[in-house]
Amino acid sequence: MSRIDGRTPDQLRPVTIQRGWSKHAEGSVLISFGDTKVFCTASVTEGVPRWRKGSGEGWVTAEYSMLPRSTNTRGDRESVRGKIGGRTHEISRLIGRSLRAVIDFKALGENTIVLDCDVLQADGGTRTAAITGAYVALADAITWAQGKKLIKHGRQPLTGTVSAVSVGIVDGVPLLDLCYEEDVRAETDMNVVCTGDGRFVEVQGTAEAEPFTRDELNGILDLAVSGCAALDAAQREALAATL
Amino acid sequence: MSRIDGRTPDQLRPVTIQRGWSKHAEGSVLISFGDTKVFCTASVTEGVPRWRKGSGEGWVTAEYSMLPRSTNTRGDRESVRGKIGGRTHEISRLIGRSLRAVIDFKALGENTIVLDCDVLQADGGTRTAAITGAYVALADAITWAQGKKLIKHGRQPLTGTVSAVSVGIVDGVPLLDLCYEEDVRAETDMNVVCTGDGRFVEVQGTAEAEPFTRDELNGILDLAVSGCAALDAAQREALAATL
Amino acid sequence: MSRIDGRTPDQLRPVTIQRGWSKHAEGSVLISFGDTKVFCTASVTEGVPRWRKGSGEGWVTAEYSMLPRSTNTRGDRESVRGKIGGRTHEISRLIGRSLRAVIDFKALGENTIVLDCDVLQADGGTRTAAITGAYVALADAITWAQGKKLIKHGRQPLTGTVSAVSVGIVDGVPLLDLCYEEDVRAETDMNVVCTGDGRFVEVQGTAEAEPFTRDELNGILDLAVSGCAALDAAQREALAATL
Amino acid sequence: MSRIDGRTPDQLRPVTIQRGWSKHAEGSVLISFGDTKVFCTASVTEGVPRWRKGSGEGWVTAEYSMLPRSTNTRGDRESVRGKIGGRTHEISRLIGRSLRAVIDFKALGENTIVLDCDVLQADGGTRTAAITGAYVALADAITWAQGKKLIKHGRQPLTGTVSAVSVGIVDGVPLLDLCYEEDVRAETDMNVVCTGDGRFVEVQGTAEAEPFTRDELNGILDLAVSGCAALDAAQREALAATL
Amino acid sequence: MSRIDGRTPDQLRPVTIQRGWSKHAEGSVLISFGDTKVFCTASVTEGVPRWRKGSGEGWVTAEYSMLPRSTNTRGDRESVRGKIGGRTHEISRLIGRSLRAVIDFKALGENTIVLDCDVLQADGGTRTAAITGAYVALADAITWAQGKKLIKHGRQPLTGTVSAVSVGIVDGVPLLDLCYEEDVRAETDMNVVCTGDGRFVEVQGTAEAEPFTRDELNGILDLAVSGCAALDAAQREALAATL
Amino acid sequence: MSRIDGRTPDQLRPVTIQRGWSKHAEGSVLISFGDTKVFCTASVTEGVPRWRKGSGEGWVTAEYSMLPRSTNTRGDRESVRGKIGGRTHEISRLIGRSLRAVIDFKALGENTIVLDCDVLQADGGTRTAAITGAYVALADAITWAQGKKLIKHGRQPLTGTVSAVSVGIVDGVPLLDLCYEEDVRAETDMNVVCTGDGRFVEVQGTAEAEPFTRDELNGILDLAVSGCAALDAAQREALAATL
Repeated sequence: MSRIDGRTPDQLRPVTIQRGWSKHAEGSVLISFGDTKVFCTASVTEGVPRWRKGSGEGWVTAEYSMLPRSTNTRGDRESVRGKIGGRTHEISRLIGRSLRAVIDFKALGENTIVLDCDVLQADGGTRTAAITGAYVALADAITWAQGKKLIKHGRQPLTGTVSAVSVGIVDGVPLLDLCYEEDVRAETDMNVVCTGDGRFVEVQGTAEAEPFTRDELNGILDLAVSGCAALDAAQREALAATL
Repeated sequence: MSRIDGRTPDQLRPVTIQRGWSKHAEGSVLISFGDTKVFCTASVTEGVPRWRKGSGEGWVTAEYSMLPRSTNTRGDRESVRGKIGGRTHEISRLIGRSLRAVIDFKALGENTIVLDCDVLQADGGTRTAAITGAYVALADAITWAQGKKLIKHGRQPLTGTVSAVSVGIVDGVPLLDLCYEEDVRAETDMNVVCTGDGRFVEVQGTAEAEPFTRDELNGILDLAVSGCAALDAAQREALAATL
Repeated sequence: MSRIDGRTPDQLRPVTIQRGWSKHAEGSVLISFGDTKVFCTASVTEGVPRWRKGSGEGWVTAEYSMLPRSTNTRGDRESVRGKIGGRTHEISRLIGRSLRAVIDFKALGENTIVLDCDVLQADGGTRTAAITGAYVALADAITWAQGKKLIKHGRQPLTGTVSAVSVGIVDGVPLLDLCYEEDVRAETDMNVVCTGDGRFVEVQGTAEAEPFTRDELNGILDLAVSGCAALDAAQREALAATL
Repeated sequence: MSRIDGRTPDQLRPVTIQRGWSKHAEGSVLISFGDTKVFCTASVTEGVPRWRKGSGEGWVTAEYSMLPRSTNTRGDRESVRGKIGGRTHEISRLIGRSLRAVIDFKALGENTIVLDCDVLQADGGTRTAAITGAYVALADAITWAQGKKLIKHGRQPLTGTVSAVSVGIVDGVPLLDLCYEEDVRAETDMNVVCTGDGRFVEVQGTAEAEPFTRDELNGILDLAVSGCAALDAAQREALAATL
Repeated sequence: MSRIDGRTPDQLRPVTIQRGWSKHAEGSVLISFGDTKVFCTASVTEGVPRWRKGSGEGWVTAEYSMLPRSTNTRGDRESVRGKIGGRTHEISRLIGRSLRAVIDFKALGENTIVLDCDVLQADGGTRTAAITGAYVALADAITWAQGKKLIKHGRQPLTGTVSAVSVGIVDGVPLLDLCYEEDVRAETDMNVVCTGDGRFVEVQGTAEAEPFTRDELNGILDLAVSGCAALDAAQREALAATL
Repeated sequence: MSRIDGRTPDQLRPVTIQRGWSKHAEGSVLISFGDTKVFCTASVTEGVPRWRKGSGEGWVTAEYSMLPRSTNTRGDRESVRGKIGGRTHEISRLIGRSLRAVIDFKALGENTIVLDCDVLQADGGTRTAAITGAYVALADAITWAQGKKLIKHGRQPLTGTVSAVSVGIVDGVPLLDLCYEEDVRAETDMNVVCTGDGRFVEVQGTAEAEPFTRDELNGILDLAVSGCAALDAAQREALAATL
């Protein structure tokens, strides 16, 4: 049984990670998971939000947004509606938490890094592509800040790597990295964020139709762990290249 | 090793479910998980949102909010700030999804039920108490609507029961139903929504400090399943009483 | 001629005042005027708003809100609409002014007390119940602050007591403490805030249908004064009990 | 003992009412109470808000606003702040209620009249000047609508006249029509809206410093009634002139 | 061929400039271009916005607004809608830039002048009347500030004069100072801001129907320059009078 | 005298126009003017806004936005601030007007085309690049709609072509197509929108420092006309290629 785009159930879509896509940002990446394209920038500023001043610790936060015509049908701009929707909030918070999981704030010092993840084209998995790309932009921004001596040498602010993938159950079959059409049809949908050593940062599973069993949960978790391992390799390869 | 409040790791706080707490709402419950108190009302209106009209199907949605002084330090009202925060949005969406998981929309007919979950006092686990209480309010509202012939007899809109509990790892020990002090100290924090037959509706786990392993995940999932079973019994007992 | 609920024209509904309803707030009261139930908390914080800094004087303010299903038909949440309605603003301001009328700001010192009055169930007279209950919560909060030495001994910040009641003319008859059904039918509607010694803090009368005469005004003012005296007694009794 | 501007306690400031100040509005008035100047327009539109459609009845509503430099110190524009303050809301509602008190909605038919009261210069009593001027603009707008046959002849939509004045107690002395300096110093401040036949539409009294006694209340009510009678005469005189 | 109101193509409408229209503002003008009436106030405050502190330089900014019934059909208040429309923003920015063009910020010192331009009645050309009137209010405010020693003597903050006029092509004919009816029918519409010595501060031309040629552009620019010269004379005459 | 980037005063930066950059939008273009990169999509929907229904005419509108890190320093998202800034509004309106200038609304029929212009990287001239790119996306969207028979054959909705360029005076020298560094230093800054036959759609010139003379205006207009001619050629070349 093959998938819409001919993949096997445990196969990722083609992943590309292009670094240095912005001349302004300290780190920037255009990442694609198949037809899903997310532009991730990492912006470094000295200083931290007021509630963290004097702590000696830095801060990392994220904002996610979709261009109005990144989807099949044009959506309203949140700036025009005057408020951010619940889904946007939720994903921005997820991206921020995921990246903070691999940061040593003491080593970062009182610097703030903001990750902007703007979806240029959406075809399922935008939040997982955003996390995976944002990690690479973050790594470049930290290297930049070390070069500028904003971050002291001797202690690495990145304590690990992080990537994310979606998994789901479609027609009873566990599938890795759902495209939009699969996502719509999934009975269960899960986003998993893993560190490079295979541990979990976030696990968010939702029964879209039928509640899922413990066995089904185990099946899709297995897929997710293998998918994150492949994404971890793609991140390493991208970062190994000269910018 | 005992917990702050003397419980064993797999023990829920005392749970109380008081039905009929409002003279206006079609279903209403004051639920407490220890010192966490949430007031849940279910409001039935004929008709559905515009995008669902003519479908023959109903709709269930939820809004969660905390009173400004439900917490130890007074928080700003979201109505005064003029926008709803990300956390509120996220929890409202979670409650709505969780209850929709046990609804047969065809059987509900073109009726809408809004669940309002207002936290009167917070001590950890407000979203899980809200889901657990909202289920009972929803059940009462459906009974009311059946009595009023808004819902046709013959087919039951409720396809199952649903409850929720938080679990976490504190000092390396998996604990059930975290109170606020435990929640703050947890390395990993997870909210689990289960149906009465032990299947999963939502699984949301977050590493607050260290990423967690597959074994740790399995340990807290076990606790969550047992906790939901106990909550399911408490719901049944509450609903068995005469209103 | 008897009223809907069998009361005489000059009779209050049953009044209950439960103190200590919140484990977090410095003062907290659940007050009921018949089926109207308002949860009042008083939150003490050191310091005052910017415009008052360095004055040596404290500040007291209030926020009023109705839970969406406190009424017979569910109302939209103001946080969801993104703005506070005129009625809410007006009542919040009224409560704040009423309580400031019995405060010696010098004696309070540079401390701020915020009174949150959240209507859990509405059946007419929510603002008057809120003022009456908020006074008791305020008194408890001041006692707490004296115990914590936030307020210096020797001078009492409370210069008097304050309570409030609605009065109106229904079918030509002056009535005390209108329930919702009476309120809807009233030709004239008035809210009166009195101190314990029978003086006026606020008098707000509105002709809903016919303009009212000076004689009618005098008649309902008489009722209001007697009602506030009874509420003053209820407040004293509540505060006399051990918390 | 004479007042700041030399008036006796029971004397109004000079009142001017200029009709026809706008070429666009169906009714328009520039009213001044001393240095307080309010521009009032009445806009007629066919049809009523949705909730009133099909009732055969009309609607009258009001919006009050202050130009940013109508006061001694420039205030922020509410349009720039993005929300309307509580005071503005409260006064808009008061003006609307006051004018609806003299309208027969059946006779008005399904037409809406919006009264805009914009304060060009403020020196105390802006809301009372607004009500007094809006009445005249409303009367002109109704005459216009009768001329256009929007309102059927035979039944007069205006059932009476309405005007408003402020009264207060300053240094223990009851004063009529407070200017800004007196208003700031008043112990008690009251706004009274009367019909031309001397009955009350609104009575809103506030103790700014000391609570006030029943005798004091009676004293300022007497002043208010006499002030409104004088304003009623000024309105009649203005309306008697050819536009 | 004559215009709607009988003017020749190169003729301004009657211009009146009344100074001292507010007792509160440091400079204030009621300007009319025919039936267009704009109330302009200049408010002086010591100090500058945060981003300019310590620079030794002042700031000048403007806010433009239309009263809801300044137009033929009542418009919604922007304060009620909760946001400022694009047109309002655009005109406020234009007025601010135009007046800053004739200010020496060093000579102004760290003072801020806010120009409020509120349209009381609109009949085309509201932005050009606003700029022309605001200049006079600004000049008076600067004189006031010099009298109060807020601005040091020796160096004049005003480096020139500024006025503005609209021009357009209607039925192929270039016309000066369009009234509303002409504006609606114009193929091309241009607003020109000139200094008193005939140089340009702003040129904003828009093809409403057909794109315009270089020759047409030259024709309307000629008209605009002559119109601004006449407005410059009117400003000088107004300022020459004793306030 | 050469420019920062070595161009002659009358030379455009390298222009690239990539069509088909989105798989979802009916027309899409990534346009670059040197380092300025704007992503333009054209979204076609059947039907028109309410105020245009039944007219038989279509509508074209535009929204402009900058990604937060498109600039050298990260800016706040307008969706997060909850309101759109004046500059964004102004540019969105300019783009919409510019493209409507070459549309025959009758030929478009009751269809709406929304142009989204999102700046991915900014280096001066973002609005002129947006207009130039949006024209190409619009042309592709119209071709698409003709293919889908949404637009009837026989009459071409596009009545011409349109492009835009910035010009300015820097150190007294008129320059074409300013990059950011030049823009900041410009004494005069002008954006010019031309049709392919050399006529003007918009002319917006602003004196940033010194007012400009008629001769200077003529000099930069000459440059703008030649620049738009070159952009017109680039658009034609891009559209001539097979998509």
